Amino acid sequence: MALDKNVVVLIGGVGGAKLAHGLIQVVKPESLTFIVNTGDDFWHLGLKICPDLDTLMYTLSGLVDPAAGWGMADDSIRVLQSLEKNYGIESWFRLGDKDLATHLLRTHLLRQGYTLTEATACLTEQLAIPARLLPMSDAEIPTIVDTVEYGELGFQEYFVKHRWQPVVKSIRHQDCERARLSTAVHDALAAASTVLIAPSNPWLSLAPILAVPGLRALLEDLTLPIVAVTPIIAGDAVKGPTAKIMAELGIDVSAESVADYYGAMINGFVDDIRNDGFQNKELQMLRYDTLMTDLSTKIDLAHAILGWIEGWAR
Amino acid sequence: MALDKNVVVLIGGVGGAKLAHGLIQVVKPESLTFIVNTGDDFWHLGLKICPDLDTLMYTLSGLVDPAAGWGMADDSIRVLQSLEKNYGIESWFRLGDKDLATHLLRTHLLRQGYTLTEATACLTEQLAIPARLLPMSDAEIPTIVDTVEYGELGFQEYFVKHRWQPVVKSIRHQDCERARLSTAVHDALAAASTVLIAPSNPWLSLAPILAVPGLRALLEDLTLPIVAVTPIIAGDAVKGPTAKIMAELGIDVSAESVADYYGAMINGFVDDIRNDGFQNKELQMLRYDTLMTDLSTKIDLAHAILGWIEGWAR
Repeated sequence: MALDKNVVVLIGGVGGAKLAHGLIQVVKPESLTFIVNTGDDFWHLGLKICPDLDTLMYTLSGLVDPAAGWGMADDSIRVLQSLEKNYGIESWFRLGDKDLATHLLRTHLLRQGYTLTEATACLTEQLAIPARLLPMSDAEIPTIVDTVEYGELGFQEYFVKHRWQPVVKSIRHQDCERARLSTAVHDALAAASTVLIAPSNPWLSLAPILAVPGLRALLEDLTLPIVAVTPIIAGDAVKGPTAKIMAELGIDVSAESVADYYGAMINGFVDDIRNDGFQNKELQMLRYDTLMTDLSTKIDLAHAILGWIEGWAR
Repeated sequence: MALDKNVVVLIGGVGGAKLAHGLIQVVKPESLTFIVNTGDDFWHLGLKICPDLDTLMYTLSGLVDPAAGWGMADDSIRVLQSLEKNYGIESWFRLGDKDLATHLLRTHLLRQGYTLTEATACLTEQLAIPARLLPMSDAEIPTIVDTVEYGELGFQEYFVKHRWQPVVKSIRHQDCERARLSTAVHDALAAASTVLIAPSNPWLSLAPILAVPGLRALLEDLTLPIVAVTPIIAGDAVKGPTAKIMAELGIDVSAESVADYYGAMINGFVDDIRNDGFQNKELQMLRYDTLMTDLSTKIDLAHAILGWIEGWAR
């Protein structure tokens, strides 16, 4: 088992966080680094919100609302209710009261001049998360979704306000050409023994990470296992709009399409036993039960993937 | 009764807010302007907190916690608890959840480039407060309290963290020389028919207002009733550190000392019937029951003061 090797995981929100939850039980946490999508980030009421970082932080610290898979457990919305009732500010984005502590503190740190990487390190240290969480970039690279119904929408407008119902024409990563790879992300990838691509939405959650200038090139230069885990199980997404977006973009809804999307960047793929399976001579292939329904299935999948990689890397 | 005259009130926090609550029932709200102490304002966790503006807003909108006299009624501290429990941030300043909506919105407006005067107008409009609340200045003029035990303390450190127990040596108004009188405050005073000085702490709540460059000179040039209401009743403060600070500054704890402190700036004074009374040929004098224990005594005092001024101004 790759217990003492540096495992770097490219990851989005809820779907990826499940695998992260398993990995942190299996890999030595100090050898585990998550490079997290920040394309969903936005400013709301003067607060910097980083949904995927938050979901991962709450999952790894045990604070997450287990039913939703995001937000803090047992949270309330007293601040939001006051904003609405007293000030007529309606919010389609739910900010829990406990959750607000995170946004307040992060925003305060950013206003004091901390980078998002530094602010995230402060938050994860206070939350006693032993693994490392790195935002994909310190620059803001908002994901913009062009839709049939509304034209271009900010990610949260698309995802939360319109509940990912609009039909997607294309997705772009605003200002990505101006962003730089952070030293922390560069060094984590340079020191990696294994890179995993979590079963997050490739187009919404992974594409923003891969859009950070230099990141894809760095990955392609690495000679080590780079393994994607299918977000498609039994021909559909477990949750969220992955399958819907694939169909809207004219892509066949299959694990093979996902592997093709990552292309030469990956050399291994974990497919689900429920899928039809596909042939790809360029890829090491593991077929496994990737449906994570509780902690034991999360740990089992993490174990299986890392053990398999250990074998084919020998 | 001066019901349709422009009444301008210089005012601090809880003590003054009681009279304000009476005045708004008696004076046509559109003729009523409050010039509010902002020397207590501070930044906390990246949020701009304006305690006296908040107390006045919550009092005039009926949202105030009636027991405390500040903060919102039926509030909770879930955000603060999360900051402490999850992030180890201990806060000696209580920020209620409902209350946080105010600070979030105000901070957001300020960050967008609104002045504090403009941000306050937005908040009071949403709270449906028909009277006008003007911060004494758009500049930050923090009140600094020099104490025997701790040296200089920011106002909230002195007042909240140390519960106004340190012995006061002196009080200063940082950066006041750089501040400017806002157009709104200037115009309100220029259009005033009557100026009241609320029964707030003269040294902590009124001195900062009078320290705004040009404000005192403007008041001294006005030829109209300028009337202070005693914050000293039966030789003591109703609440808070007024009497304690007077003693520490070597000032006799009496209504006469308060009148002397305002000096030539005022031409009328409302003393409490419980006090010994004093002679001052320069001042019109009303002795009245100034202890405001409920809405009817607040209204009664407001009526009495304005009716009396109406009489001596003829």
